[in-house]
Amino acid sequence: MSVADEFVLDFARPERIGLEEAVYAAGKSPAQIDAILDAAAVREAAMLLTRLEPGKHAALADRHRARLDYCAVSRTAIFGRPRPVRGPARIGIVAAGTSDIAVAREAERTLAHQGHATTLFADVGVAGLWRLTRRLAEIRAHPVLIVAAGMDAALPSVVGGLVASAIIAVPTSVGYGVAEGGRTALDAILASCAPGLTVVNIDNGYGAACAAMRLLHAARALAPDPARPGETA
Amino acid sequence: MSVADEFVLDFARPERIGLEEAVYAAGKSPAQIDAILDAAAVREAAMLLTRLEPGKHAALADRHRARLDYCAVSRTAIFGRPRPVRGPARIGIVAAGTSDIAVAREAERTLAHQGHATTLFADVGVAGLWRLTRRLAEIRAHPVLIVAAGMDAALPSVVGGLVASAIIAVPTSVGYGVAEGGRTALDAILASCAPGLTVVNIDNGYGAACAAMRLLHAARALAPDPARPGETA
Amino acid sequence: MSVADEFVLDFARPERIGLEEAVYAAGKSPAQIDAILDAAAVREAAMLLTRLEPGKHAALADRHRARLDYCAVSRTAIFGRPRPVRGPARIGIVAAGTSDIAVAREAERTLAHQGHATTLFADVGVAGLWRLTRRLAEIRAHPVLIVAAGMDAALPSVVGGLVASAIIAVPTSVGYGVAEGGRTALDAILASCAPGLTVVNIDNGYGAACAAMRLLHAARALAPDPARPGETA
Amino acid sequence: MSVADEFVLDFARPERIGLEEAVYAAGKSPAQIDAILDAAAVREAAMLLTRLEPGKHAALADRHRARLDYCAVSRTAIFGRPRPVRGPARIGIVAAGTSDIAVAREAERTLAHQGHATTLFADVGVAGLWRLTRRLAEIRAHPVLIVAAGMDAALPSVVGGLVASAIIAVPTSVGYGVAEGGRTALDAILASCAPGLTVVNIDNGYGAACAAMRLLHAARALAPDPARPGETA
Amino acid sequence: MSVADEFVLDFARPERIGLEEAVYAAGKSPAQIDAILDAAAVREAAMLLTRLEPGKHAALADRHRARLDYCAVSRTAIFGRPRPVRGPARIGIVAAGTSDIAVAREAERTLAHQGHATTLFADVGVAGLWRLTRRLAEIRAHPVLIVAAGMDAALPSVVGGLVASAIIAVPTSVGYGVAEGGRTALDAILASCAPGLTVVNIDNGYGAACAAMRLLHAARALAPDPARPGETA
Amino acid sequence: MSVADEFVLDFARPERIGLEEAVYAAGKSPAQIDAILDAAAVREAAMLLTRLEPGKHAALADRHRARLDYCAVSRTAIFGRPRPVRGPARIGIVAAGTSDIAVAREAERTLAHQGHATTLFADVGVAGLWRLTRRLAEIRAHPVLIVAAGMDAALPSVVGGLVASAIIAVPTSVGYGVAEGGRTALDAILASCAPGLTVVNIDNGYGAACAAMRLLHAARALAPDPARPGETA
Amino acid sequence: MSVADEFVLDFARPERIGLEEAVYAAGKSPAQIDAILDAAAVREAAMLLTRLEPGKHAALADRHRARLDYCAVSRTAIFGRPRPVRGPARIGIVAAGTSDIAVAREAERTLAHQGHATTLFADVGVAGLWRLTRRLAEIRAHPVLIVAAGMDAALPSVVGGLVASAIIAVPTSVGYGVAEGGRTALDAILASCAPGLTVVNIDNGYGAACAAMRLLHAARALAPDPARPGETA
Amino acid sequence: MSVADEFVLDFARPERIGLEEAVYAAGKSPAQIDAILDAAAVREAAMLLTRLEPGKHAALADRHRARLDYCAVSRTAIFGRPRPVRGPARIGIVAAGTSDIAVAREAERTLAHQGHATTLFADVGVAGLWRLTRRLAEIRAHPVLIVAAGMDAALPSVVGGLVASAIIAVPTSVGYGVAEGGRTALDAILASCAPGLTVVNIDNGYGAACAAMRLLHAARALAPDPARPGETA
Repeated sequence: MSVADEFVLDFARPERIGLEEAVYAAGKSPAQIDAILDAAAVREAAMLLTRLEPGKHAALADRHRARLDYCAVSRTAIFGRPRPVRGPARIGIVAAGTSDIAVAREAERTLAHQGHATTLFADVGVAGLWRLTRRLAEIRAHPVLIVAAGMDAALPSVVGGLVASAIIAVPTSVGYGVAEGGRTALDAILASCAPGLTVVNIDNGYGAACAAMRLLHAARALAPDPARPGETA
Repeated sequence: MSVADEFVLDFARPERIGLEEAVYAAGKSPAQIDAILDAAAVREAAMLLTRLEPGKHAALADRHRARLDYCAVSRTAIFGRPRPVRGPARIGIVAAGTSDIAVAREAERTLAHQGHATTLFADVGVAGLWRLTRRLAEIRAHPVLIVAAGMDAALPSVVGGLVASAIIAVPTSVGYGVAEGGRTALDAILASCAPGLTVVNIDNGYGAACAAMRLLHAARALAPDPARPGETA
Repeated sequence: MSVADEFVLDFARPERIGLEEAVYAAGKSPAQIDAILDAAAVREAAMLLTRLEPGKHAALADRHRARLDYCAVSRTAIFGRPRPVRGPARIGIVAAGTSDIAVAREAERTLAHQGHATTLFADVGVAGLWRLTRRLAEIRAHPVLIVAAGMDAALPSVVGGLVASAIIAVPTSVGYGVAEGGRTALDAILASCAPGLTVVNIDNGYGAACAAMRLLHAARALAPDPARPGETA
Repeated sequence: MSVADEFVLDFARPERIGLEEAVYAAGKSPAQIDAILDAAAVREAAMLLTRLEPGKHAALADRHRARLDYCAVSRTAIFGRPRPVRGPARIGIVAAGTSDIAVAREAERTLAHQGHATTLFADVGVAGLWRLTRRLAEIRAHPVLIVAAGMDAALPSVVGGLVASAIIAVPTSVGYGVAEGGRTALDAILASCAPGLTVVNIDNGYGAACAAMRLLHAARALAPDPARPGETA
Repeated sequence: MSVADEFVLDFARPERIGLEEAVYAAGKSPAQIDAILDAAAVREAAMLLTRLEPGKHAALADRHRARLDYCAVSRTAIFGRPRPVRGPARIGIVAAGTSDIAVAREAERTLAHQGHATTLFADVGVAGLWRLTRRLAEIRAHPVLIVAAGMDAALPSVVGGLVASAIIAVPTSVGYGVAEGGRTALDAILASCAPGLTVVNIDNGYGAACAAMRLLHAARALAPDPARPGETA
Repeated sequence: MSVADEFVLDFARPERIGLEEAVYAAGKSPAQIDAILDAAAVREAAMLLTRLEPGKHAALADRHRARLDYCAVSRTAIFGRPRPVRGPARIGIVAAGTSDIAVAREAERTLAHQGHATTLFADVGVAGLWRLTRRLAEIRAHPVLIVAAGMDAALPSVVGGLVASAIIAVPTSVGYGVAEGGRTALDAILASCAPGLTVVNIDNGYGAACAAMRLLHAARALAPDPARPGETA
Repeated sequence: MSVADEFVLDFARPERIGLEEAVYAAGKSPAQIDAILDAAAVREAAMLLTRLEPGKHAALADRHRARLDYCAVSRTAIFGRPRPVRGPARIGIVAAGTSDIAVAREAERTLAHQGHATTLFADVGVAGLWRLTRRLAEIRAHPVLIVAAGMDAALPSVVGGLVASAIIAVPTSVGYGVAEGGRTALDAILASCAPGLTVVNIDNGYGAACAAMRLLHAARALAPDPARPGETA
Repeated sequence: MSVADEFVLDFARPERIGLEEAVYAAGKSPAQIDAILDAAAVREAAMLLTRLEPGKHAALADRHRARLDYCAVSRTAIFGRPRPVRGPARIGIVAAGTSDIAVAREAERTLAHQGHATTLFADVGVAGLWRLTRRLAEIRAHPVLIVAAGMDAALPSVVGGLVASAIIAVPTSVGYGVAEGGRTALDAILASCAPGLTVVNIDNGYGAACAAMRLLHAARALAPDPARPGETA
């Protein structure tokens, strides 16, 4: 059995669920990734790779590496031509601390890959609340917010109590002791006293971006039909 | 210090975040709840109570009980006049098993309290996939889905791979052994291979409903302005 | 061996560590508690009992029950004559939600038992930040703060970022799902990004009060000697 | 005491339980493994080694390395002459994702070592259900299925609801955040709503293969005796 | 929405996966169970109910209770006419201690309901190994073994090292301290040094029985075709 | 977006909460830390860095490294001119074992950076109680104690039963098996039978020092006003 | 199958391992226990029952109840004639707090049942170290010590650092918050810095007593043979 | 403060508790260990070092390394002249698998360092019970047994059911998946159905040896005084 038999690409995914397939590189060998990119190249498909460590990136075939836009901070790579990013940013990405930037960038690049503009708000955690409040009006202007926070993850609770936007929180594994691995951040968000927060897996900036895109898809479906006056979403 | 000093109602919440305050009854005494309802009655405010056990409901003052619409299955009560439910259902509530109905009903009543119609799809878990597939077209027609599932919570993954709607999953505490308490269901959803699922706390039908309302709020903000032709969400 | 051989009261504790012995009633039989109170009565000692469930309180000997000041909310009882509470309150007790009142009251009564005045700030959790900020000046005026919070316990982080007071946080077991039992609240406080918070065990209002009294003791030792001008603590 | 005293090979195992002894290399030094292979060579016994990291493989004595058929993907080595693989495949090995191939290969090689043919179905996870359904008839034709899946491990539940075959599920440690280490995959399978799934330890492809061989052994014992007409298994 | 809309019976299950649907009573109300039994009665279907507590059994409609064969030890009920149990027992059920009998009985009755004979071996745990060894020949004569054990669950390991039969282990929640809830028993079996054990969820006698039936199904498919001489399974 | 947009320094922190901002280096890249130090240099601000691994320290810009006082044991660095340490030590730092020194040094250097003298008591764990008792008088003379202990962390309990000082315990991750990671030490302190201990996160010497400084701040506020005779703290 | 087939008594246990069989009543029905006692009565065997709740004790057959020496504190019952307790106490039982008495009594009665005298030292926990030190000489005079402690379980560490006796520690489930269930106490003892402590399961006073009897057995085997002068143990 | 102030050697330990101090090298720097050995050298004391990784051993001062008897398998080193090992082995060390040898050797060398002979029984785990039974008589002849086992740790239960000796079990971290880290092995032993097993921390061969020496100490104290005929231990 060859490497090419070890994967089945889901090119029908966009039609089915509105999201393009991405390649989770963490559990795959360079040979497997090369074979996947070969298949993508044949179809002239663009493709996002996540969790691609620098060492594995370096081990890919030269023919592919040349076509990859690689970002070591977020460990993402974009293969082929990304869609152009259009329009004003409707999605805000809020990072509690400087250490949460890697996760925020993963979300940002996933969205950019599919043509969505975003605004990044960095280092606005609650230890100095003024850093959040001075940017609150700007944040509130984004109907969809991705909020990345580690340690105690108090930021999503505070934001959730102050703005009406849809909030997708991403707990991060930043921290040590009881915070190590991100379980405390995850559970704190799930237990938030601010109503209506949603959560994705620890460090899952990619998943948060996909959730935001599902939300945009829902918004289009919910949009009032101008032809039927008086209807509201 | 009297009981009335033990709470501070947040009547400004709807203006701030688009959601009405609800009373989490589990940790409160009947005396505290009675005092809260007195304050609501003075303002002629409607109010949702969650996690109100039958015994505690029975212990409330008669003057309040008469004005409560109580549902023992979901342990919710609606005080005062709820908003009328309008328009076609845009939010689908999908319950994996019969045992997940209590959580689904909590979401349904929270949404009804604020005027939102929903469609309930019950007992469509993956052990008999045909139960899901025969209703898939109907489910897909709802731009927003709340999916409640316990045990292994495979349903949100399968739904997430088949529809493009925004998905808010609610793990439930249904099950025994490793499933007891709902942590397995929660973690399985967070770890889902279907991209873009979001999650709320275990058994948190109320929170899922609030997340759905934030999403509707975002959809309104994202709606293309008919005055600016050509713009898309 | 009689019941009287099953305990050894530590009447020397105040001299040694500045705190009076208290009786943890949860693991003791009514017969054991009666014997302990007999021993206290002989010495005319006042004594605090914690975790005394109403049923166990009712099962105590009449001669003791008559001398007990019992509070069912905090499940504490004070035996004998408490010290008079003197002076202005220097210790603030901040409770995130109405459901955290039981723990706050345990701290309040432990301190009152030893003569310390306190101010209670109830229901100031971060879901409605205005509830906290409108009382911030008052809170800040207390050099020592006990902050009780369950669920995500975001309140201690926010308070810790806004005031310079010494903060003793008490996680509470309020909540369900991932919040059940209080571990999430505990870990969130330990992982707080606000520097210098300290924590005690879940629901341990008694311990927080003891920590506050140790702190007052330290403050007396640290106080500048007026005889030595220019010295600062 | 010499290295040769540190192990006792169980050459009677096949007669006793129908399975040949295998060497778990993870906790053994190269010197210990060399001594074990010496003992096997003396008896001209074939032997499977599992969890043999490339570095440890490289550190073995040359005389043994020459006789080892090593597979770095599955970290298995077969020493000596394996039995010939005979007949059509009755055991299907289903891998949810490309990242689960290593575990699937461990099962495949364990079975091949004892003469059993298998069919591998790779990358048929539920995120794109069509990948599973298009191969369902083939999968169903195998009376015994080993299903390897990580993350949320929804695949065994779905397969279990669709086919009647005996199913041995292997949770894998593929994933990050709550999925890291494989506990979520394990618990999700144990909690499956599909009846009659069985499970082995995380990443234990070897154990799943052994369970399949026990099952084949049982099948032989259960086979109707042609001499006694009318009897059914 | 009526109770009848809250469930969807899977009467096609036997054709699909060879197992009849069973009703997990734990999360269902008496009204829901009554409605399910009404539906079964209409089709003259027999049906197994699991996790039916005595109190809930007593609350069912009289018309159904009269047709239920209820066993309080295993909390199972069989509705309607069960299949006759035929032939010699090929499945052995081994219970480590007297306290594991409830789980063993659940497996036994699930199998009896579908016509399979079993032999029960009770109280053969390893604390007195002679209790196991004196019955070993009998146990070994059963090609399929269900082994229920709590506490340290050493029994499946010992049995697995002594017999070649297919083994489905059921950890039980018997025990206290670290054994409470059954996680230790579960993990001990998964970590067993005896190769080829399989496991189901804690206390899941029903699931073990289903796994045994899948195995019998596989055995029938694997049986050598007498028409093709020389073929072996 | 440049690196300079990824952080927001909180230079107002001392005025607000009495503590200077410190930089948690663990999650930051050398480029980010360099940018932060550039910003500090512009303001001529002194700054503490914690969790700065030797490798990352070596990767910082030469212009900054020259101004850093780096301590590899505690992995802390002090940038710029620290405040002079004044007066007699009022804070004792007690380390249970030699392995807890790293954490103790982190606390010591954090306090020194802000001008506070400390006394270190090393290797006084309870396995040899005489090591503690021979220094007890000295320890007791410090109104504030930071007690670092790993493994079973029995030391804070014993100290708490012997002295009246305010105690801030720091569990350490020293140990293996059940002690690995420090959770056992943390929980043991939280569960201590000695009343009034407070705790910070595992290995958080920095946080313990901040808590001590909050306490000194409270002591100043609690100090009797010489102008109002008769008042006591 | 009758109840009598559900158990197999191990009357050969004393000859094999020096300990008499005891009946763990927690998982057994009154009918099962009655049948076991019938079997014991036939052989005129004495028998210890552990974990026998008052309600279950009351449900036993009158003929057995009359012959049971029942202790509600330790939930143990002794059936038939116990051996006479002989000689001076060589085993000390040390209970940290009054709440640990139940476990201590279980150990005491298990030993008394087999003829061993013990001394109980109650309420000597480390919160008031003088309570321990004033009895230290007496404690040290016992070559074997069973030490029961809950919460932080600091007592075994302190005792282990002060006496040379063999120490069998029993963690208890006394406590709340992080102490609930006894895992913290267990882990703290396992992680103790005092060398040579051994541990049994949480609340397992019975097991500690058995371990003490194994130790006495070993001591007899290790005793120097007076016939062979000069030999030492 | 110099390195020499960071430790306090407990040379009085043998007199107090019968055990010599050992140095836990894992958390100490080479400089700290060198200083400790300097102090030992001055007193001409022998000293055991545990958890000394090869790299750290290599980093010690030459003057010390020359006097160290280092064993890389057990990571122990003996400094100075060990006591001569005398007499027949009374302590058996039983290792379940080849991978448990490292822990067994740590126990063996700790005992040898203080003059105690031992017998090692390797690879006698229950997967092939004959390996245990063929050596049972020999094992039984040792009054004290240290039993090291990882994975499911069924061996101590089986041994405990077959021999009367005192048993000190050491769970090991051998294994993967649910066995990783050794918690499963630890809990399985604690939950053992064989009465009277005792346990030490995971991988703690040193602690098991110390417990064995405490036991020998107790045996000497329990030995019948030949001067008082008729007395038995």
